[in-house]
Amino acid sequence: MSKGTRDFLPREVAKRNYISDTIKTVFRNYGYEQIETPAIERLETLAGKYGDEGDKLLFKILNSGDYLKEVPDEILTSRNSAQVTKYIAEKGLRYDLTVPLARYVVQHQGKIAFPFKRFHIGPVWRADRPQKGRYQEFYQCDADVIGSRWLWSEVELTHIFLDVFAALKIPVKVQINHRRILYLIAKHYGYENHFKEFSTIIDKLDKIGYEGVVNELKRSGISAVNVKESTDGNDLSHFREGLMSSHKSWKDLTLRLKDIFKDWQEEHKHIDELYHVTRNFEGNPLLVFNPYLARGLDYYTGIIWEVVIDKSDERCVNLSLGSIASGGRYDNLTEVFGGQNMSGVGISFGIERIYDVMEELKLFPETIVQGVKVLFVPREPAVEEFTFKQVQTLRNAGVSAEMFFNYVKKQKHYEYATAKGISFIVEVGQDEKATGIFRVKDVSTQQEQRRSTQELIELLKECNN
Amino acid sequence: MSKGTRDFLPREVAKRNYISDTIKTVFRNYGYEQIETPAIERLETLAGKYGDEGDKLLFKILNSGDYLKEVPDEILTSRNSAQVTKYIAEKGLRYDLTVPLARYVVQHQGKIAFPFKRFHIGPVWRADRPQKGRYQEFYQCDADVIGSRWLWSEVELTHIFLDVFAALKIPVKVQINHRRILYLIAKHYGYENHFKEFSTIIDKLDKIGYEGVVNELKRSGISAVNVKESTDGNDLSHFREGLMSSHKSWKDLTLRLKDIFKDWQEEHKHIDELYHVTRNFEGNPLLVFNPYLARGLDYYTGIIWEVVIDKSDERCVNLSLGSIASGGRYDNLTEVFGGQNMSGVGISFGIERIYDVMEELKLFPETIVQGVKVLFVPREPAVEEFTFKQVQTLRNAGVSAEMFFNYVKKQKHYEYATAKGISFIVEVGQDEKATGIFRVKDVSTQQEQRRSTQELIELLKECNN
Repeated sequence: MSKGTRDFLPREVAKRNYISDTIKTVFRNYGYEQIETPAIERLETLAGKYGDEGDKLLFKILNSGDYLKEVPDEILTSRNSAQVTKYIAEKGLRYDLTVPLARYVVQHQGKIAFPFKRFHIGPVWRADRPQKGRYQEFYQCDADVIGSRWLWSEVELTHIFLDVFAALKIPVKVQINHRRILYLIAKHYGYENHFKEFSTIIDKLDKIGYEGVVNELKRSGISAVNVKESTDGNDLSHFREGLMSSHKSWKDLTLRLKDIFKDWQEEHKHIDELYHVTRNFEGNPLLVFNPYLARGLDYYTGIIWEVVIDKSDERCVNLSLGSIASGGRYDNLTEVFGGQNMSGVGISFGIERIYDVMEELKLFPETIVQGVKVLFVPREPAVEEFTFKQVQTLRNAGVSAEMFFNYVKKQKHYEYATAKGISFIVEVGQDEKATGIFRVKDVSTQQEQRRSTQELIELLKECNN
Repeated sequence: MSKGTRDFLPREVAKRNYISDTIKTVFRNYGYEQIETPAIERLETLAGKYGDEGDKLLFKILNSGDYLKEVPDEILTSRNSAQVTKYIAEKGLRYDLTVPLARYVVQHQGKIAFPFKRFHIGPVWRADRPQKGRYQEFYQCDADVIGSRWLWSEVELTHIFLDVFAALKIPVKVQINHRRILYLIAKHYGYENHFKEFSTIIDKLDKIGYEGVVNELKRSGISAVNVKESTDGNDLSHFREGLMSSHKSWKDLTLRLKDIFKDWQEEHKHIDELYHVTRNFEGNPLLVFNPYLARGLDYYTGIIWEVVIDKSDERCVNLSLGSIASGGRYDNLTEVFGGQNMSGVGISFGIERIYDVMEELKLFPETIVQGVKVLFVPREPAVEEFTFKQVQTLRNAGVSAEMFFNYVKKQKHYEYATAKGISFIVEVGQDEKATGIFRVKDVSTQQEQRRSTQELIELLKECNN
């Protein structure tokens, strides 16, 4: 197997399907439609969209045939790999699902009903150095609304976060912020000309602590004023704690923000935007304000979210994971592909992190790995045909059943049943063939009950969940 | 978009999902478990497994970083692309799902319950010249049993073919043969030393006709005897027609085959194998014997199948498609990866061809593209919050609903609803907000009915299918 890639065993696939099926059901309930795009994109579509670092992490596909033919002599002999790549690789593997979405929207705009509410679940590829929990091939799971600025999309997407994690039973907090409120904070502290650096550093507060942030701000050379003393004890740390802990309602928070930033009336519409979204969740403790939430990506321009495990839940105390879902509003997604300027807002679920959390908290229902309900074991070749017919009768009734393939000792039947999560074993001999009554053995309790095939179907349909 | 790749619109994804979900349900009913393997494999895993032509069609991925560093001067200046590839590409995209399965079985054998019944649905990549109906990225859908020679697997897989196409309502014939019976026919006509060429040519009978086959046999230079006159008028064409049309039962066919090949008693066990499988379908006209069925792939050693559209169904007369599913028994799948010799038997469904047939025959149920049931349209901002609450009430009851995003003329609501397959539109104004009673308009008939939100939920849950 190639480094940084994974095989998935049947049990793992069943669990991954459980997560993605749950998310899909919620997406569909809210009217998002599934699309698919190819793994392979033209490199000109991908290059330059993810910064210099991103360009280096693109997997590039060698042109077919005698690909060296196209390389000029002087380029080849220079041994400059980056230069040569331009001549020998026209295609690459997609790096995320967002750039393909932008290309898709521009390419198919005549066939799309706008606002376009789509979801897309699929693998993406990055030539990152493989390490624990970081893979070269991993899944993204995105829902976006393209072509509308209506804030009800943000309300809807907040509900989707809550619905998905309620369905998966993962205790979470949905953190929310608005990029322009973060900008106002930067302004408040004198960093308006260094917003990008400021937001990158402040976003790390939970990781490196208040002292760390202040030190990084100083080291960065962007520190215009002494942060700690700039506002009469109203330092960065107290500023956030004050806002996060003391407001009694989203209404209350809105008034406080407008008061703090009263000198910048022209920005109050952004505070109103946050209120438009949050007032729909008044009294819901799962939605929380985090004024320092920044989301690394430059392209966010409005509301942003990050979903984190709820550390106040006692089961989660030892979990040390970052965000398991996130999102935000962005502008100009499609312009780079010649489309008109369209606003969009989207969210993304981290399937692999959600998987790890659910394993850790033992949240996967046992039933999801129980595919086959019953294993029929013929005792001799003369009853195989009869046994197979019973198995077919169950299957035709929608009860997943199997016939065992080999004449081996009983222990092997149990091992096979246990490995596949099969609940019952039925041995078939001449007696059973004559009477049509079977001894149905429960694999876990070893208890037996006597049933006809029809009774067995009823039994197994009952315990269908 | 890269040549030979495709985007899928929501309607297309819904239809593709309908096909693969139907197949998955049948696979699971028979106890096959889903696995996944990565798109990226080491080139040493893939190379040499598909013949010289296949090697050329492998997509190769450029190594990361300064990949030219590793190429010796003399190799680079020789400009021999094939030679240079060995130094600059270690990875490739999988070409099918079978070689990854072999690697998987060897690599995870300690965690697998044998016989291993797995299915796998996913994209594969081939650097073929793109043309109508042939893509560089396309889906395979395979089920295999690894590690058992029991013929009940063949019986089971034949049932799976029949169950899948019955569920999809596609009229088919499942053609069956045994590679050793084809070998006996080759022997019968004096081609036993040229079995591969003989079987390749005879397999084309339906395409090029009897004269074409005879000509190709002559041209190939392997013609030991004059085919036409070799067996007293019992020529190739009459031989097949005689076997296919006149046998009254699989029992009868078995006796005839044993009689024809009475000089080769040692091969009769293979005729018995065919009988073991087929006698379970005695009287079922959908399973037919085709003694010239060869399946191109060298590695088949036992029972082989090909599923074709039933041309005797009047709806299918104008369909000009080859097989839509196929399979067979093979040996030595895992040996090349250092595993022990394991016999396997597998089948494969052609998702894209099945899609085309279902479009042609209009077999997709209309309901599958109806995601959202009802579109709520607020008439003014003052009722947006009320409208959104109604929409949430429906969603929480599991009825997919949407709120329209924009104040535009009614025609636009209808266009949006039609594009997304939404059945009902509800406009909301001050009246509706005051009374809680809505006029629910059927998009196709334009008829209105008055309903409360609760009544609407009941109405829409009823028409859930």
